[in-house]
Amino acid sequence: MNVALALDAMSGDRGPEVIVAAALAALKHHGNLTLLLVGDESCLRQLLPSVVEFDPSRLRIVHAPEVVSMHERPSIALRNKRNSSMRVAIDLVKNAEAAACVSSGNTGALMAIARFVLKTLPGIDRPAICTALPGVTRPTHMLDLGANVDSTSEELFRFAVMGSVLASAIDNTPSPKVALLNIGQEEIKGNDTVKQTAALLEASELNYAGFVEGDDIFASKVDVIVCDGFVGNVALKASEGVAHLVKHVMREEFSRGLLSRLMAGIASPVLGRVGRRMDPRRYNGASFLGLRGSVVKSHGSADALSFEYAIDEAILEVEKKVPERISDLLEHLLVARKED
Amino acid sequence: MNVALALDAMSGDRGPEVIVAAALAALKHHGNLTLLLVGDESCLRQLLPSVVEFDPSRLRIVHAPEVVSMHERPSIALRNKRNSSMRVAIDLVKNAEAAACVSSGNTGALMAIARFVLKTLPGIDRPAICTALPGVTRPTHMLDLGANVDSTSEELFRFAVMGSVLASAIDNTPSPKVALLNIGQEEIKGNDTVKQTAALLEASELNYAGFVEGDDIFASKVDVIVCDGFVGNVALKASEGVAHLVKHVMREEFSRGLLSRLMAGIASPVLGRVGRRMDPRRYNGASFLGLRGSVVKSHGSADALSFEYAIDEAILEVEKKVPERISDLLEHLLVARKED
Repeated sequence: MNVALALDAMSGDRGPEVIVAAALAALKHHGNLTLLLVGDESCLRQLLPSVVEFDPSRLRIVHAPEVVSMHERPSIALRNKRNSSMRVAIDLVKNAEAAACVSSGNTGALMAIARFVLKTLPGIDRPAICTALPGVTRPTHMLDLGANVDSTSEELFRFAVMGSVLASAIDNTPSPKVALLNIGQEEIKGNDTVKQTAALLEASELNYAGFVEGDDIFASKVDVIVCDGFVGNVALKASEGVAHLVKHVMREEFSRGLLSRLMAGIASPVLGRVGRRMDPRRYNGASFLGLRGSVVKSHGSADALSFEYAIDEAILEVEKKVPERISDLLEHLLVARKED
Repeated sequence: MNVALALDAMSGDRGPEVIVAAALAALKHHGNLTLLLVGDESCLRQLLPSVVEFDPSRLRIVHAPEVVSMHERPSIALRNKRNSSMRVAIDLVKNAEAAACVSSGNTGALMAIARFVLKTLPGIDRPAICTALPGVTRPTHMLDLGANVDSTSEELFRFAVMGSVLASAIDNTPSPKVALLNIGQEEIKGNDTVKQTAALLEASELNYAGFVEGDDIFASKVDVIVCDGFVGNVALKASEGVAHLVKHVMREEFSRGLLSRLMAGIASPVLGRVGRRMDPRRYNGASFLGLRGSVVKSHGSADALSFEYAIDEAILEVEKKVPERISDLLEHLLVARKED
């Protein structure tokens, strides 16, 4: 199956160079891929190598003169930046010229524009942000990571449906284990919303595995962890903070004097392997779920390798028809609930 | 100043041996310390070395025949375990025989009993759990870590006051920087409770530093981070999960074949230093704040060294009169607010 993606080539912290490099690499790795590079035409044209090694019909530049900046308010970007690379890329998905869009731009603006242009799926009011996180033996998908700050139990239930479809599609798991993020103290186990969501999940056909706690996110215990966007965002960023602290301490200790530096040199093959396994770039590409179309958000600071992982994520979502499957499963579950 | 502490010697996962070992070590390190070991008398007596190297008046066994188990419901423990080591230890604080209590038992039960026996300070309805977390250059105190699941802005404001007093006392900082934990997306920056708390903090005399995100917890940016107990508990445990994952990956990679194991051996002095700096035992001892008395919760799996850190925390809180100072500062801030 041929897959056409629209890449927002102008957003992100590192400029269009990394997007173009990622695009060329992805075209090499995926024979069925067509890419629409959206952004300033003359700028992008200069970045393309003079000798193009692949069929030029597979890489097309779509001109967009404006850029949504990283700190622009989503409402302003939505209203005033109709010719931005971000907006035009999403318009291409709306017009079915592309099956999905990948952007490393401003998350809030991307969500606002995607929601406005593409609309949400039937039964979904609130899209959610989902990403895979590394675990001891395999990754776990977690959502919502910050698209919403207050969620009802019905919304959390729908996040569970969306996460289950994504995990099933990406990991080829027929019936992913879905858990609710909670806190561990007995009497006060969870707030009312979490308890009500648990009841909805227990009564559903989803493979509901009960509550998990924060440390289970990285323990490969379940396939999907559901939480509200405030909690998910804090947990994700706190985890990044710890990883950063460990790296900082390792670097400090391994550069403390000549002997330590020598040891770092000797141990570097193993330290390199550890670094590669924990490399956040491998987990780049957060899915906006619940929209009529696939939108993948790359980290703002993504380099070319990292952005290519986000492209891979978008290709998989398109090939596995994630939005359609979310819509079908949700409808099925809601009908089943009524019949009970 | 002489400090008397009551140690719940029977709770925790590792039994009274580690508590007794920690007690003996603490008595050696603190000349002004008296300890009341609360638990089964014959069991504890057997664990004490025959030749006691210190003034026996500094270590007294207080008999308590029952134990609160790790998974007992707090309400049941409160009602039925009036002769438990946990309850008797807290009673000793109530009766002013001890200035503080340290326990590695069931957190929910400890909080329920402490709250019932000691009562909360004037102006405080909800005690909170606070701990220091490691940072790039210095630790940050974070609360609440799970005593409450839903908190109003007034409650979060009081957590900020309590955290500020604790940070000031422990770190000798006259005016600790206090921040609110929030998520990073612009338009939707925080829920209503967080926004209202920010307004209360801005109008107060506390050294309010604005919002921080999850990754700032470990960045040594501020002295105190305030959040509700659900978010705090998840963030704390997610961080433990990442630390555990890093350790797991390091161990796996450094034991992959003879060469890697050799490198591990060579690099072990540096890896040891990294391990010591990141050692969670050094951060053991969570403070229950907002009570008429000091209660320090040690991790359930604490070893003797780790439990001794919790004892140190309790000594500092007593010496610095943390409960009294919380009460005074809160009263002062609430009067100032009325006068505005």
